[in-house]
Amino acid sequence: MRKLINNPADVVSDALRGLAAAHPSLRVDLEARVVVRADAPRTGKVGLVSGGGSGHEPLHAGFVGFGMLDAACPGEVFTSPVPDQILAATAAVDGGQGVLHIVKNYTGDVLNFKMAAELAEDDDIEVASVVVDDDVAVQDSTFTAGRRGTGATLFVEKIAGALAEAGAGLTEVAAAAREVNERTRSFGVALSSCTVPAAGEPTFTLGEDEMELGIGIHGEPGRERAELATADEIVNAALAAIHTDMPLDGAEVLVLVNGMGGTPLIEQYIAYAAAANWFEGHGVTVARSLVGDYVTSLEMAGCMITVCRLTPELRRLWDAPVETPALRWGR
Amino acid sequence: MRKLINNPADVVSDALRGLAAAHPSLRVDLEARVVVRADAPRTGKVGLVSGGGSGHEPLHAGFVGFGMLDAACPGEVFTSPVPDQILAATAAVDGGQGVLHIVKNYTGDVLNFKMAAELAEDDDIEVASVVVDDDVAVQDSTFTAGRRGTGATLFVEKIAGALAEAGAGLTEVAAAAREVNERTRSFGVALSSCTVPAAGEPTFTLGEDEMELGIGIHGEPGRERAELATADEIVNAALAAIHTDMPLDGAEVLVLVNGMGGTPLIEQYIAYAAAANWFEGHGVTVARSLVGDYVTSLEMAGCMITVCRLTPELRRLWDAPVETPALRWGR
Repeated sequence: MRKLINNPADVVSDALRGLAAAHPSLRVDLEARVVVRADAPRTGKVGLVSGGGSGHEPLHAGFVGFGMLDAACPGEVFTSPVPDQILAATAAVDGGQGVLHIVKNYTGDVLNFKMAAELAEDDDIEVASVVVDDDVAVQDSTFTAGRRGTGATLFVEKIAGALAEAGAGLTEVAAAAREVNERTRSFGVALSSCTVPAAGEPTFTLGEDEMELGIGIHGEPGRERAELATADEIVNAALAAIHTDMPLDGAEVLVLVNGMGGTPLIEQYIAYAAAANWFEGHGVTVARSLVGDYVTSLEMAGCMITVCRLTPELRRLWDAPVETPALRWGR
Repeated sequence: MRKLINNPADVVSDALRGLAAAHPSLRVDLEARVVVRADAPRTGKVGLVSGGGSGHEPLHAGFVGFGMLDAACPGEVFTSPVPDQILAATAAVDGGQGVLHIVKNYTGDVLNFKMAAELAEDDDIEVASVVVDDDVAVQDSTFTAGRRGTGATLFVEKIAGALAEAGAGLTEVAAAAREVNERTRSFGVALSSCTVPAAGEPTFTLGEDEMELGIGIHGEPGRERAELATADEIVNAALAAIHTDMPLDGAEVLVLVNGMGGTPLIEQYIAYAAAANWFEGHGVTVARSLVGDYVTSLEMAGCMITVCRLTPELRRLWDAPVETPALRWGR
């Protein structure tokens, strides 16, 4: 295992120290493992908390800031944060208007966020939760009952964050978050495995001419192990899977072509070209797009495509100013 | 070779189609292979052109936009752009105040930019050039007489771009670009090789417990092949090499901890934590910093550290608004 780390046991702590040093706009509690906007709590604003296993950076801590999350709680690599940690994040951002938990649909995350929400309610903090489950690749999987939560998380965090920043109440923010999740689908492909530092070995192995279609962001198996295809074929397969699940005809969409951590940006743009071509051929209007490493799986090679069917209101919220380490525009 | 591509021969063309589709703020001439700001040429503004081999994305095309480059001309992977291509970029951004060429110090790039500058002068376009050579790892190397140009390129493009945007003349913009280069040093470490698509095989191989200290951004050999060390040790070695070449005592610095394309962001933050610790221990003030994949080497694992000794004026120019696909703030 060749990794730029000190010790497998210290990966998350060391990275959080780096995050704190690099971003004065964040307040990082190294003990509680909570990353908060420096100006939290904001009185009168709904707080947004997300979190999950580490190894998906910049998700979630890179999305803490104006117009997006108020706090993130990173667990160990590919491991859910614990309830006390989520509770600490919730309390740190409670501005009196309640807190929204944005939870990716993995069994451990759902359970721990649920416990944290109950503890927060005991402390008189109102909590609403939205569970993100956008991945069309498989129904249940290694860590999941139902669909996995992947790229839609970024869209939910951005759009709900914009609404909360504008002063909307908890019910309205939670409803928008659910609407974004319902209108979004993802499909990922792996061209290599990743290695969890504590495991020291690749999570799975691929032959020289193989790929994994429908990969999960922890290296969970997808739909099938297939012969390596071209970027055009891979992207067409991903979009066909999404289109089958949620027809895109005539839609105006927000698209994320997402690197999984180990795929160079030049290849991500090749994938984006293929996607743009598919959309054009299917009469779909791409209103907004992102290309880059946003929801990663350590150093896995491959890409994930996430598509959201926009409404004019969702587009307006997507365009609203955001200022976080990993996403920023227009302020 | 498992890559997200269609055909090794089409990598640059396909990626440029993706770039064009993803960024309406750019005008991409697929024939001439020139990427230009959509509002170019800007009358009365010095034009900034950079370019070089592809495979280093987001460098350079990702830095085309307000407050940074006016044009980029991408060559084939790890191959200099040709003079006609550089000339086309130069002509496309000439607003009557001359054009600055920002050239990384590789033999082919220096030669081709020089020929393009002569051709431009024949067309009555005034051209100044700055050669970036910040890498302290080795003196001459595979593709270079003198030092290699690496991370400083980003700083030169940003700071010269801010000055040009503010209306400075060609002489002043070129002088600032040279000043940034002279005040900046870099050192890189590889934990894996990369594979040039047309070659189909890794450029070099490392043993399971080896790393390459002083790596170049094309996989050129560095100072030594050494036993894999911890992130702290690697970063300390890189900063010691920089500090030996350009003493940092008492300096106020701008720091880039740069992923080479295949290193997850969580590891880059671990490296940043080590760097912050080194700076604190050496009485160096980190005024500004960046962590991420900015000057890459396809999917190479590893990191490069780039340090610029700021002046108040350089810091002001660094902070000036910028709006490009890969770098944006404050507009």
